[in-house]
Amino acid sequence: MNFNLIVFVTLFIVVANEAKVLNEKSNTCQDLLGDELIEEIWAYENVKDKILNYVMGGDFKGKTYDELAKFVDTFGARPSGTSELEKSIDYMIDLTRKEGLNDIVTEELEVPHWERGVETLTMFEPRKKKMEILGLGKSVKTPPNGLTAEVVVISNFTHLEDTSDEEIKGKIVLYVPIFTTYSDTVIYRSQGAAKASAKGAVASLVRSIAPFSINSPHAGSQTYNDGVEPIPAAAITLEDADMITRLYNRGEKVKVNLIMDSTLETTVSRNTLIDLKGHKDPEKLVIVSGHIDSWDVGQGAMDDGGGMFVSWAVPVILRRLNLTPKRTIRTIFWTAEELGLYGAQAYKKAHESESHNINYIMESDEGTFAPLGLVANGNSKTRCIVAEVLKLFQSINASTLVESDSPGSDISVFTGNGIPGASLYNDNAKYFWFHHTEGDTMNVETPENLDLGTALWTAVAYIIADLSIDMPR
Amino acid sequence: MNFNLIVFVTLFIVVANEAKVLNEKSNTCQDLLGDELIEEIWAYENVKDKILNYVMGGDFKGKTYDELAKFVDTFGARPSGTSELEKSIDYMIDLTRKEGLNDIVTEELEVPHWERGVETLTMFEPRKKKMEILGLGKSVKTPPNGLTAEVVVISNFTHLEDTSDEEIKGKIVLYVPIFTTYSDTVIYRSQGAAKASAKGAVASLVRSIAPFSINSPHAGSQTYNDGVEPIPAAAITLEDADMITRLYNRGEKVKVNLIMDSTLETTVSRNTLIDLKGHKDPEKLVIVSGHIDSWDVGQGAMDDGGGMFVSWAVPVILRRLNLTPKRTIRTIFWTAEELGLYGAQAYKKAHESESHNINYIMESDEGTFAPLGLVANGNSKTRCIVAEVLKLFQSINASTLVESDSPGSDISVFTGNGIPGASLYNDNAKYFWFHHTEGDTMNVETPENLDLGTALWTAVAYIIADLSIDMPR
Repeated sequence: MNFNLIVFVTLFIVVANEAKVLNEKSNTCQDLLGDELIEEIWAYENVKDKILNYVMGGDFKGKTYDELAKFVDTFGARPSGTSELEKSIDYMIDLTRKEGLNDIVTEELEVPHWERGVETLTMFEPRKKKMEILGLGKSVKTPPNGLTAEVVVISNFTHLEDTSDEEIKGKIVLYVPIFTTYSDTVIYRSQGAAKASAKGAVASLVRSIAPFSINSPHAGSQTYNDGVEPIPAAAITLEDADMITRLYNRGEKVKVNLIMDSTLETTVSRNTLIDLKGHKDPEKLVIVSGHIDSWDVGQGAMDDGGGMFVSWAVPVILRRLNLTPKRTIRTIFWTAEELGLYGAQAYKKAHESESHNINYIMESDEGTFAPLGLVANGNSKTRCIVAEVLKLFQSINASTLVESDSPGSDISVFTGNGIPGASLYNDNAKYFWFHHTEGDTMNVETPENLDLGTALWTAVAYIIADLSIDMPR
Repeated sequence: MNFNLIVFVTLFIVVANEAKVLNEKSNTCQDLLGDELIEEIWAYENVKDKILNYVMGGDFKGKTYDELAKFVDTFGARPSGTSELEKSIDYMIDLTRKEGLNDIVTEELEVPHWERGVETLTMFEPRKKKMEILGLGKSVKTPPNGLTAEVVVISNFTHLEDTSDEEIKGKIVLYVPIFTTYSDTVIYRSQGAAKASAKGAVASLVRSIAPFSINSPHAGSQTYNDGVEPIPAAAITLEDADMITRLYNRGEKVKVNLIMDSTLETTVSRNTLIDLKGHKDPEKLVIVSGHIDSWDVGQGAMDDGGGMFVSWAVPVILRRLNLTPKRTIRTIFWTAEELGLYGAQAYKKAHESESHNINYIMESDEGTFAPLGLVANGNSKTRCIVAEVLKLFQSINASTLVESDSPGSDISVFTGNGIPGASLYNDNAKYFWFHHTEGDTMNVETPENLDLGTALWTAVAYIIADLSIDMPR
């Protein structure tokens, strides 16, 4: 996941007010929906039970985990522009066809292929120490022998502004924001190099945007600003950042050598669309989605293999159970999310003329830990419908509606424009321990949580795709 | 810390029965100690308060953390046989002299110097993946181009025995014990290579002995058996071990190339002894200790920088507060603990004739998280004295006595032979997350916990060294 900043700020505010919002709503939802619609929603209880039983105790039990494991063990990391990613797309198409689902289309788009190459960071004053780093997305490389410079430790952008250009010029800036929330601190990763360059720095390092570490650096995207020299940018571990800060604060001169050998080119990848055609309004879409690309570290099991697989499971399970909703369910595997939502933006552009047909758009890209409900946007009536649907999932503790004006990462391209949708709300307190690290592997996932996520995801998508009314905008 | 297996098994059993043991004891302790001794112990409440106030709110507040940070930032890892270790010993002597403590002796001993050199593990079937590893202590090296072989996954030693020699011969064994307790699983690290070699394996890998990982391998010691060919031995991450296991269980052939370039030689290091001479019985010793060497990864802040510094603080604080106990307090920085308790064994041998003078021996080498009390051996009366002393520390929640027949790592060399002693009992549930990894840094430590540990350690050592009676054996 490559969070849209604004989205995340909104999300957290809403979470904080959740209880209040839901209470206020309970009075008005009854009026907005009316007895008939509420009754209609509750009539799906049997279908919901059928799906939950099939996934949590029937033939599908453990399957999401097993298939995800096979997938990530086979391909490993899948950065955009690599043959691993393209082969993994072909594999998913094959896997889907084996389930008898043949309404599959891929749509090509241009994507960046950034390869990190060799990366080393060596402190050699006040003593020699090799440090783990991860270059940031699209970073330029250093000269072959690297950049050797003194480090200047910067707490935040105000501190940077308050520091004279002379103190920054020719040096390597190290930003050491202490993680509070991702949205509050990620700007030092995404904008740090641009701002440091504007002050004359030769490279930019950032304390990894994470609350916890076992010497584990976190990759992530970053962007240069027009008009400033692009300089090499990398993340270091919390441990090394804090050690350098201590040395620096004791008055020691810290000198490092940074070598990066990255390359950036443009190539082609594909979004994958799998349709389970609706029996009444096949042109109307309920989209369930996750991204298939990953960072080049770890296995991309959490970000976003799990999200992709719970979305893959939706049409597979419905077909197996002979449940065809009124509207079409479209599963989308977005490509090239990590370097900037390329897949989602290309889909939006290519399908602009039919965007009114997106009845609802769902995405799982914030982990597939134990599901708790949904983070949803939409007008009051839409939110009330979702809240009512979620009440069906009290038995699995997944009835919480968190309201946000722009939920999701890829789908923020759509929900940010008023299309109603939701992302999976789950117990992801440790998400940023593993996010964009070598630790993003199957060890983060459990069969039980993936079954719960798959069951919720499938049943919600079915009910919304089968309701007598469209989701109001 | 390089745990003595037996010790740890005993420890955990005793923890489970702790409440019961303490209750039974409370009846008999009163009889064993008598009113007079109990009164004598409680008369130390003022001294205890003086020490606690000085460390937790006075001039020493934060000093243990600050000095530890300076020390580990200056020297980093300190494996036995390196100049870093020897320089760090000189530094500690200097630091101690600056406190006006000049009764310092170092004692030379032969220690192993094992250097890991280049290490790589690359899976190339069923796909290519570089894996993080840490060679195990004293492991032999591979040929220059490494060993290329198929992996056979082994769950436990029974599984190994049940596997024919033909299935093992020429292969690389991967042990995948799932961590329950350290003592239950560490044998696959310490004995795995020897047993695999006996069955004809060419190398031995082990799933790191740890309950949690962010792709973080754990180093550790291991020993070869006489009569079997020594084969290269290394630890891999939980994540990679579990992935290989899944591939293997799916019937995939897993082939890897292992390169290790380690060297082993013998060199000289030093134990460091700092005495604060007793005013009445200077020949009698209360020893407080930790080891100064570390693994070659991380900073050795937790294992055992923290333990060494709380022990260093004892004579420093007592001198600053003009508190001289009846007996001598001797701080010892053991050397070369990690590869096999070399420092403790050499001290024992060199001081055999005066071992009756060790009144009490204390060690902190299981973390310096929030202190909870002591793990202590000794006869009933000794344990009762310790229990009574610990009651003085209810205000800082450090009154728990855990009973063990052989507490500690280095001091097990003494406590295992009936000399009474104790190790620091602390809230170390996450100890094995960081143990012997690159994550063993200052980020594991907090000023507050180190102040608490220092305060408890200093006050307990003073009281025991000053009591009117010797600790009974």
